[in-house]
Amino acid sequence: MMDQFATRPARPHISSRDVTGTAVYSPSGEKLGHIEELIIDKLSGRIAYAEMGFGGFLGLGEEYHPIPWSKLSYDVELDGFVTDITKEQLDAAPKRTEDWRTDRRWEQDYFTYYGAVPYW
Amino acid sequence: MMDQFATRPARPHISSRDVTGTAVYSPSGEKLGHIEELIIDKLSGRIAYAEMGFGGFLGLGEEYHPIPWSKLSYDVELDGFVTDITKEQLDAAPKRTEDWRTDRRWEQDYFTYYGAVPYW
Repeated sequence: MMDQFATRPARPHISSRDVTGTAVYSPSGEKLGHIEELIIDKLSGRIAYAEMGFGGFLGLGEEYHPIPWSKLSYDVELDGFVTDITKEQLDAAPKRTEDWRTDRRWEQDYFTYYGAVPYW
Repeated sequence: MMDQFATRPARPHISSRDVTGTAVYSPSGEKLGHIEELIIDKLSGRIAYAEMGFGGFLGLGEEYHPIPWSKLSYDVELDGFVTDITKEQLDAAPKRTEDWRTDRRWEQDYFTYYGAVPYW
């Protein structure tokens, strides 16, 4: 599924408690937001999305944005997650429909938009 | 990996916030404990364990017990997780070593003990 680390890290696990509130950075080191919660797919037991909260730069009335989990890598140095998603991509992301959580077609388009490997 | 639901449930996702504090039941409906936190494998991005806290029935000075995530199924009726792990199995489970989190051999034995599919 993912290959977020080339070798097994010295501390191979991270608690969901420690993920919550952790900052998310762009590749250039710009802070995009922070993780609010993890969204788990009941069927597969996999983490599907991380809900990212932020400080209002999108200006869309959004309070959070679902980031495909596979797009986040934990960086020990930064003590945060890094993603290759840009602010511009966040701005232009497909809008969520009312039933997006149950709409596989919407999800497929969303994951394709971000170039993310589907969790399902 | 898992097949915890035969078909996609009406609400296919669950938040890590809602998992924390959720009760864990045996197949006979006995409450074994509750989920304290999820332990995520950094390398694969998968949930490796759920830390289960409980009310002291083990009497081993343990405050929590790592349950392989694949051994838990969410049950809508119960509004909790169900596992086929018994109290007796919990009692007799391999003791954690100081470095169990980084000891793949220990983890292998532990998953084998519970008949769980490894997360790695």
